[in-house]
Amino acid sequence: MPAHSKPDPPAQPPLRKDAARNRERIIAAAQLVFCERGLSVSIEDIADRAGVGVATLYRRFPTRPDLIAAAFEAKMGAYADAVTSALADPDPWNGFCRYIERICAMQAEDQGFTDVLTLTFPTATQFEAARDRGYRGAVKLIRNAKATGHLRQDFTAEDVVMILMANAGVVAATGDTAPQTWRRLVALLLQACAAENCRPLPPAPSGPQMYRALQRLGPTTTTTDD
Amino acid sequence: MPAHSKPDPPAQPPLRKDAARNRERIIAAAQLVFCERGLSVSIEDIADRAGVGVATLYRRFPTRPDLIAAAFEAKMGAYADAVTSALADPDPWNGFCRYIERICAMQAEDQGFTDVLTLTFPTATQFEAARDRGYRGAVKLIRNAKATGHLRQDFTAEDVVMILMANAGVVAATGDTAPQTWRRLVALLLQACAAENCRPLPPAPSGPQMYRALQRLGPTTTTTDD
Repeated sequence: MPAHSKPDPPAQPPLRKDAARNRERIIAAAQLVFCERGLSVSIEDIADRAGVGVATLYRRFPTRPDLIAAAFEAKMGAYADAVTSALADPDPWNGFCRYIERICAMQAEDQGFTDVLTLTFPTATQFEAARDRGYRGAVKLIRNAKATGHLRQDFTAEDVVMILMANAGVVAATGDTAPQTWRRLVALLLQACAAENCRPLPPAPSGPQMYRALQRLGPTTTTTDD
Repeated sequence: MPAHSKPDPPAQPPLRKDAARNRERIIAAAQLVFCERGLSVSIEDIADRAGVGVATLYRRFPTRPDLIAAAFEAKMGAYADAVTSALADPDPWNGFCRYIERICAMQAEDQGFTDVLTLTFPTATQFEAARDRGYRGAVKLIRNAKATGHLRQDFTAEDVVMILMANAGVVAATGDTAPQTWRRLVALLLQACAAENCRPLPPAPSGPQMYRALQRLGPTTTTTDD
């Protein structure tokens, strides 16, 4: 989508060398701790793991969303890259199926990412730019896969979000005890996405409804203490 | 299943009249508060809503699981009844589809129930007897629906649990903003359950794996404070 491709704004001004090193250490620690224990882990624990003081951490990342966005920026980039690869597949229906499998696998590999994928971070420009790129790519991929006649015509971009939400439920419940279960769910859903023999469905949620649903996930996943 | 139908043991010895009234008030309050605010709500808040002292509540329900099981005993009974109705349908495939829709609707109506459906309460004999009845009924319904040729032959009782987990993910994310989304997920999944044109799936999780997954959900849904 060249019409939309303005350069990403820089995340923040360049840092002095030790400040940059601290930032890297904090991000690496946050990635580990978020992945192990979820997004609601205490900021103190992350500072401890990074070997920096809490004040240093807050200077770099004044709010929890700032830190979450920084920790998952690379993953959100990988998510956007997944749709770029899918668009390069000469068979768009195959590209679509591999794309759904890939993003659901990314959820299964890292539950923290599941939460992040469904949160908005208005101040994290690079993170949000990657999300936009992923969304626009998914819309194009769906259009191409429908054009082949293989993807059901009533499939929408919001259905991708719905599949991710369903997969998140299975991953959360079975991740420890039956960690391959998500593969069966996704295979079932992809069979239902095929145009052959498909029957009418209840209406899809609207884009604004799903966007509000994503925003709503924020508080419940980032604050467990009330 | 007459071979298994021993009478349910009484939940507890008969209570004096005022004690019985207190028990009813506590259960009614717990049903409301669990439904509104989830299973991790404080016991004090439930006692307040019931208009009884905390000591009175603890005398009747020494642990949180005791109270949860009592509050949801009727719902678990309704869940078991849903499969009984489905078994009475002269068309077992139709009965199967209506059953999946019904139990997913019960999840959508009451998120507290979603959690409870996937918890075990070894000391709550009536609650667990209803769960067993529901499970045995589901196994029979699946067998009957396969015999018609309409349900895919590789469908298992564990797939019902997987569908509930997926539905729980969608209900949790969209319940407030796009509350009909679960209907679309369930319709998609049921189309994939049809035997016509179905293709092989990754293996189903085993019964013991899914049982451990259900037990595992307990701590994460009942205690959010750690």
